[in-house]
Amino acid sequence: MNAILKREPAPGASYEQVKVPAPGSDEVLIEIKAAAICGTDIHLYNWDSSAASFTEKFSVDFPLTLGHEVSGVIVQLGSGVKDRRIGDRVSIETHIPCFKCYQCSIGNSYNCMDMGLYGITYNGAFADYALSPSVLTYVLPEAVSFKEGALFEPAGVALRAVSEAHITPGDTVVVYGCGPIGLIAAQAARACGACRVISIDINPFRLALAEKAGSTVIDAREGDVAKRVLGLTKERGGADIVLEMTGAREVYKSVFNLIRLEGRLVTVGHPASEVSVNITRDFNQKGINIKGIFGRKIWSTWQELSSLVVGGKLDLSSVISHEYKFSEYEKAFEATRGDSGKVLLFPD
Amino acid sequence: MNAILKREPAPGASYEQVKVPAPGSDEVLIEIKAAAICGTDIHLYNWDSSAASFTEKFSVDFPLTLGHEVSGVIVQLGSGVKDRRIGDRVSIETHIPCFKCYQCSIGNSYNCMDMGLYGITYNGAFADYALSPSVLTYVLPEAVSFKEGALFEPAGVALRAVSEAHITPGDTVVVYGCGPIGLIAAQAARACGACRVISIDINPFRLALAEKAGSTVIDAREGDVAKRVLGLTKERGGADIVLEMTGAREVYKSVFNLIRLEGRLVTVGHPASEVSVNITRDFNQKGINIKGIFGRKIWSTWQELSSLVVGGKLDLSSVISHEYKFSEYEKAFEATRGDSGKVLLFPD
Amino acid sequence: MNAILKREPAPGASYEQVKVPAPGSDEVLIEIKAAAICGTDIHLYNWDSSAASFTEKFSVDFPLTLGHEVSGVIVQLGSGVKDRRIGDRVSIETHIPCFKCYQCSIGNSYNCMDMGLYGITYNGAFADYALSPSVLTYVLPEAVSFKEGALFEPAGVALRAVSEAHITPGDTVVVYGCGPIGLIAAQAARACGACRVISIDINPFRLALAEKAGSTVIDAREGDVAKRVLGLTKERGGADIVLEMTGAREVYKSVFNLIRLEGRLVTVGHPASEVSVNITRDFNQKGINIKGIFGRKIWSTWQELSSLVVGGKLDLSSVISHEYKFSEYEKAFEATRGDSGKVLLFPD
Amino acid sequence: MNAILKREPAPGASYEQVKVPAPGSDEVLIEIKAAAICGTDIHLYNWDSSAASFTEKFSVDFPLTLGHEVSGVIVQLGSGVKDRRIGDRVSIETHIPCFKCYQCSIGNSYNCMDMGLYGITYNGAFADYALSPSVLTYVLPEAVSFKEGALFEPAGVALRAVSEAHITPGDTVVVYGCGPIGLIAAQAARACGACRVISIDINPFRLALAEKAGSTVIDAREGDVAKRVLGLTKERGGADIVLEMTGAREVYKSVFNLIRLEGRLVTVGHPASEVSVNITRDFNQKGINIKGIFGRKIWSTWQELSSLVVGGKLDLSSVISHEYKFSEYEKAFEATRGDSGKVLLFPD
Repeated sequence: MNAILKREPAPGASYEQVKVPAPGSDEVLIEIKAAAICGTDIHLYNWDSSAASFTEKFSVDFPLTLGHEVSGVIVQLGSGVKDRRIGDRVSIETHIPCFKCYQCSIGNSYNCMDMGLYGITYNGAFADYALSPSVLTYVLPEAVSFKEGALFEPAGVALRAVSEAHITPGDTVVVYGCGPIGLIAAQAARACGACRVISIDINPFRLALAEKAGSTVIDAREGDVAKRVLGLTKERGGADIVLEMTGAREVYKSVFNLIRLEGRLVTVGHPASEVSVNITRDFNQKGINIKGIFGRKIWSTWQELSSLVVGGKLDLSSVISHEYKFSEYEKAFEATRGDSGKVLLFPD
Repeated sequence: MNAILKREPAPGASYEQVKVPAPGSDEVLIEIKAAAICGTDIHLYNWDSSAASFTEKFSVDFPLTLGHEVSGVIVQLGSGVKDRRIGDRVSIETHIPCFKCYQCSIGNSYNCMDMGLYGITYNGAFADYALSPSVLTYVLPEAVSFKEGALFEPAGVALRAVSEAHITPGDTVVVYGCGPIGLIAAQAARACGACRVISIDINPFRLALAEKAGSTVIDAREGDVAKRVLGLTKERGGADIVLEMTGAREVYKSVFNLIRLEGRLVTVGHPASEVSVNITRDFNQKGINIKGIFGRKIWSTWQELSSLVVGGKLDLSSVISHEYKFSEYEKAFEATRGDSGKVLLFPD
Repeated sequence: MNAILKREPAPGASYEQVKVPAPGSDEVLIEIKAAAICGTDIHLYNWDSSAASFTEKFSVDFPLTLGHEVSGVIVQLGSGVKDRRIGDRVSIETHIPCFKCYQCSIGNSYNCMDMGLYGITYNGAFADYALSPSVLTYVLPEAVSFKEGALFEPAGVALRAVSEAHITPGDTVVVYGCGPIGLIAAQAARACGACRVISIDINPFRLALAEKAGSTVIDAREGDVAKRVLGLTKERGGADIVLEMTGAREVYKSVFNLIRLEGRLVTVGHPASEVSVNITRDFNQKGINIKGIFGRKIWSTWQELSSLVVGGKLDLSSVISHEYKFSEYEKAFEATRGDSGKVLLFPD
Repeated sequence: MNAILKREPAPGASYEQVKVPAPGSDEVLIEIKAAAICGTDIHLYNWDSSAASFTEKFSVDFPLTLGHEVSGVIVQLGSGVKDRRIGDRVSIETHIPCFKCYQCSIGNSYNCMDMGLYGITYNGAFADYALSPSVLTYVLPEAVSFKEGALFEPAGVALRAVSEAHITPGDTVVVYGCGPIGLIAAQAARACGACRVISIDINPFRLALAEKAGSTVIDAREGDVAKRVLGLTKERGGADIVLEMTGAREVYKSVFNLIRLEGRLVTVGHPASEVSVNITRDFNQKGINIKGIFGRKIWSTWQELSSLVVGGKLDLSSVISHEYKFSEYEKAFEATRGDSGKVLLFPD
């Protein structure tokens, strides 16, 4: 079979023929049907400073198969696997819990104190076949296509952000960032009670996608973002909720200005370095509520996502802008640099 | 001016000429523009057993002007009124708090321990002009019509029920009863994250309205309701949420059967007598969550409602089926007995 | 080894010599150190109507070893057990989840849709040795004695009830029933922010235990309970929270009267038949919050309990009134009929 | 009468004879019985950079009577005051809401969008007599002394912090800072379910007070605070909750390290300038919950406080270290610089 491999901690990757792996007793082998490129894949591919600092916390053994946003069909079961069958159409939860620590014991395995990451500490799935711990496969509803299934992992981040935002009916939600997660979050916020979603970005291509999805859009390059948000949310003195999905340090210079008193900020984007905050004014006097998130809840976020996708409330495929074969991976990574939504990869 | 009066604790009412009342120091005088008939008005009009028991708790001085779901324009201010102006377009919160008790002191005036009721303990507003305590008038957004404004009070009950249901994205919500409040609740549940709303009634006219609003409908006369709901919610073993809006005692024979483990029941309808419940099976082993509600939150429900109506997420006028003049009140009350949604009244 | 067996669906039990069972691949064998008699054991022993109806839902294979509130030491591991070691001091979670259903998948295995019960659908532990699924053993902190460990299962019900009560600092909590669970709940409520706990029972022996633990006590045989509770909670018009732990049908005649507006009722006791409730007055107009519970959260309730016991905030041993050997089981069951707290059993 | 006045935006204050003020129609005149010096008073007295920046947001008219933590007896009522009586023993809520804005309208007047501050934008109460808006006086329970009553305002901040911390039974709570608010918060956290409170400070006098109140104490000058907290909270990987009550910028260098995954930080202390935070590691990957607070909830925090003080769960007087007369104000402010808890002032 073929796989997209990272052979060393340096820029680049290779598309190579490798042996089909054999599942351990608690693993399954999946024939990959669709995959998507995540920001993390791009950092690893480029081997930039984010990749370096990320892999300090989550250590990599080279060679590493890249990729973790995938869907496929189970074709082989490990000897101890009872709850999956050959032929199951699945996606993969990429946060790998230990199932032993305090957090796992109280039902919060999404918060595992000794977490591994699929595609980093465990081989990824930009490959014709890939392994997964059986308990981390999610069986897709029939009505969900493989393309949509490959997007469940990032869509789960978007939905969890919306879920942790605790939208009150009629709220105004600002989604900062119109990448694929921001675009899905905007859809999800509208589906979950927001009366108005304000999507902010600096890329007109992405802003157009957000507008098409029903957002009021603000191009952050055109003047004072906070002023414009406050203009739209006068009565309440700011947005009720902000979902920060850019990871841009500049956003933190003004993001608190556009939240109303006792509003809520959910942080999703990963700034590459520290940011300055004014605790007195922006935390205390604002009565702020902040929630940081990293990944999805296992499996409640996935179940909610299934219901929303099957129920026609979320259109995941609307964020797909490019499709390539695994062998065209260089073009695919190149595409993520330009005007793009989600870039998909498929077996050759 | 003319008003619809109830002169004694007996069936019927009269349409009579009376003096325009003068506002006390904290009251305003409102020129009524639209009004709607509530179930309570019907009980009072018919003077049935519900009316009798209700007015034991909330005592009436006859003659009483009927009516409390209204909108209009402020035309006169009491001497001490500072926060309203002549010309303000308003609706009225009908639960009259004392503003002194423990519940009022902690910000929950909607739970007042010594509550009065507009149209029962305080004269109502099926009249050309009506008084209201100034602090209980809600200034309508410009984009809200008088007809819609007259429906804010009952729509607020529907929205509060949805709000207390704590919908998780993707939930299935059963709305038991397709009267005006049930129809608006079905819309609101869909707007607030429900993937599927199942509306149940025994009246085909009302079921048709629910279906038009996007609900999956069940005619309760056609066999086992619980079985059909369970058929639609197999994976979770029942609906996530049930909003009980009929007040029919028969509903309580099966309503717990159609709720999933640790699901939520919001009770809104007022049964005329006691019902039997199986605490062991339906409360404990089910892990039930129950919330009873009576009225709206002051003013958070109203603010949420405004946002949803102005934002196009709730179409209140879709539940209106009949319109009459005050002088035609007998026909109007008659209309509520047949195939009807909301029946509106207007000054002659 | 010896065990207390129930050989048929009829009153009584026997103390017999049986073979030590061998653990299946995912089971452990536990040398029992202490055990306690639960209300369910008494129903099964007496084979009363509760036992009959309970075992309709949770089916029994005879002969059945009785008992599920226990502690002991692991002495043998099944072939597939990885997370336990010989010598681990453990107690047992008695609600046996399937780990496959929707509820299990979202982390709520305590709500399993296909739950088994230790000591009913799975052999119990009033025996020198007993099996348990490995994943359902809870490793006791060193500072917890075997006697205390045997009480973790019922204490977990008490603590979960308190936890679901959502006590606000300064609340008055009524605990209806001063059996072992009620006595521990009273302690836990005080430890978790209640300013006053009112314990109610009809048994002076138990009321004395409650008073010793710091409760204000009310003997329900001495006149109107609601009146006395209202006298103590005048300002708020009733208790903030009621924990119903008797299962007595009579309690439901007045329990809503002693709860304040928008107060909370947690139902734990299992009435043997249906009760009548006034939805209009006691649910809707009261703005009631009700939560039914059945068992503990896995493992968050256990973790909380450990912290409270080790931290000296809960004194479980204070509820123990009698201690017997397994061979004295008839005396032990007899003791539960009279003035008693918790009755313990130990291997001979 | 005499009052402690601030005549200009410069260091110092004066004790002068002034006219007893006359209440406006909605005000009451209070004979002051006890008062306490708050950090804000010290900033104003010293006229440091905090005072300057604070009074930019909340503007001062000189001369200003200092002081806002007080208790006394109502001796005169404004013409429009209905809900208070001469002789009422009261304390004062110092956050003055407009009662008109969006936040006030939804019952959150503690979040008022146009808030005034007693003792800054409204004359204070370090005086023999002082005015207050009638609706902002809190009638003290009989069992509460004037000294305790003067501490309700700061104690309310402590209790609100604990309340917003959402303690789960058995949690470890870190209270950073052992000033009066930190000392009361430590007591309140223990009363509300915390199994262990870790109090941190750099002042041995204050640490001794914390230890006396039951806290495990850490002297922050003696090495790595985070390491020591982690040593005490090994199983959970950090404290469940941290209440930041110092406002020291250095604290933010390590505070996130000592919080467990998905733990909660409540910020109360006001740093004088911005601090740096690592969003990626400390917000997102930690799954942090942060809540900023400023003041008390009106009146729910006060009601909770009353219950806890009257119920013997909080001993407010234990934090008092010095008592002076108003005329000794210079000594009193001097005392706050050294080893001190709360410094009280009384009329001469």
